[in-house]
Amino acid sequence: MWHQTTLRLAPRQRGFHLITDEIVKAMPALAEARAGLLHVFIQHSSASLTINENADPTVRQDFESHFNAMVPEDAPYYRHTYEGSDDMPAHLKASLLGSSVSVPVTEGRLALGTWQGIYLCEHRDQGGARQLVLTLHGERSRWRPESGAPDPYRVR
Amino acid sequence: MWHQTTLRLAPRQRGFHLITDEIVKAMPALAEARAGLLHVFIQHSSASLTINENADPTVRQDFESHFNAMVPEDAPYYRHTYEGSDDMPAHLKASLLGSSVSVPVTEGRLALGTWQGIYLCEHRDQGGARQLVLTLHGERSRWRPESGAPDPYRVR
Amino acid sequence: MWHQTTLRLAPRQRGFHLITDEIVKAMPALAEARAGLLHVFIQHSSASLTINENADPTVRQDFESHFNAMVPEDAPYYRHTYEGSDDMPAHLKASLLGSSVSVPVTEGRLALGTWQGIYLCEHRDQGGARQLVLTLHGERSRWRPESGAPDPYRVR
Repeated sequence: MWHQTTLRLAPRQRGFHLITDEIVKAMPALAEARAGLLHVFIQHSSASLTINENADPTVRQDFESHFNAMVPEDAPYYRHTYEGSDDMPAHLKASLLGSSVSVPVTEGRLALGTWQGIYLCEHRDQGGARQLVLTLHGERSRWRPESGAPDPYRVR
Repeated sequence: MWHQTTLRLAPRQRGFHLITDEIVKAMPALAEARAGLLHVFIQHSSASLTINENADPTVRQDFESHFNAMVPEDAPYYRHTYEGSDDMPAHLKASLLGSSVSVPVTEGRLALGTWQGIYLCEHRDQGGARQLVLTLHGERSRWRPESGAPDPYRVR
Repeated sequence: MWHQTTLRLAPRQRGFHLITDEIVKAMPALAEARAGLLHVFIQHSSASLTINENADPTVRQDFESHFNAMVPEDAPYYRHTYEGSDDMPAHLKASLLGSSVSVPVTEGRLALGTWQGIYLCEHRDQGGARQLVLTLHGERSRWRPESGAPDPYRVR
């Protein structure tokens, strides 16, 4: 089975934001996959995706602080400077974190660890709406969630 | 459908280089995929791949400057020093950026954003020819590009 | 073909560890795939996976040294501090390196370069056992390794 859709995220402020629930809602076919992979891709070069701790908001604040220290604004060696101080650092942060995440799917659910969530990493001050491409591929369960019957594949 | 091929890139100078067009040319089966994923893997530990801005060459120059500042040559704590000053930084940069990129394929085309391109990140002074493994998997379109008929799946 | 399994790794000390052989042993179906991809995912937010040089142990020591310099403990801007000095740096390092690696499979083997291996990156002092989810998907070879017949697909 192959399912592909786009997800347009509402604009977020600069920083790190949990978007796991939005992704799951945008791909209802997840529930029908016994084993597979969900690929999430961001179609921008100044925002990125990563997976990290899903509970304490101070982790996401510390991500913003550390990435600002590690990739400073207005470094003397930047030549790509005409789109504002946050532009070149945004490109660098985007490549350090990456344009996609890929998550295993097991028995109709993302096989994330207990403490893992998917982050939108917004590196621009005014990044605007960001577009994701979600691609699910996998092996369909013979059980269908809408049938009401118990799922013979579900073991946990 | 599964297609896999290797692509041997001509040697590039140290720095960041756009290689999107070479990748697309090396995988003509892309045109036959309605929905899928293209996985691009580099078989080296001192060069890497990333996705970023595809237009202004100063972005790629700034990548080289920033990665040199963030991962210095001849750091006093390096022990792996016998292959030259650019060797250990090359390994570190390669892991920071990653050995592969995976891009959604939609209606026969890479679903990159308007401003995105695929970079070869050459971290060695004399890296030589670099080899990529391209793996395409997806769902074949019933429409074939060579048929001349209009593509019923193409919506944009 | 789709195969999915979990692999529980024995606890490792903080640092970078080669785990290629453990992964290959945990996924015997690799031998049956003519072309495919192996996706390896770590279900934790303070450890990560990467691909790098598989021979000289000083490379892995230098990884530990450099990541400690680039992502310091006890940075004055950290707010997520109650789980110990190694906690917030572990989250940051995990996202810099990433939660998964994806490796092409060719004729029953991982298509890694000669010098590449898969690293477990343990960023905590006491990380404990780490769990991986391995997902293999690909095109089955008509040849089966157990048949004893020569493999007609094997070209190198």
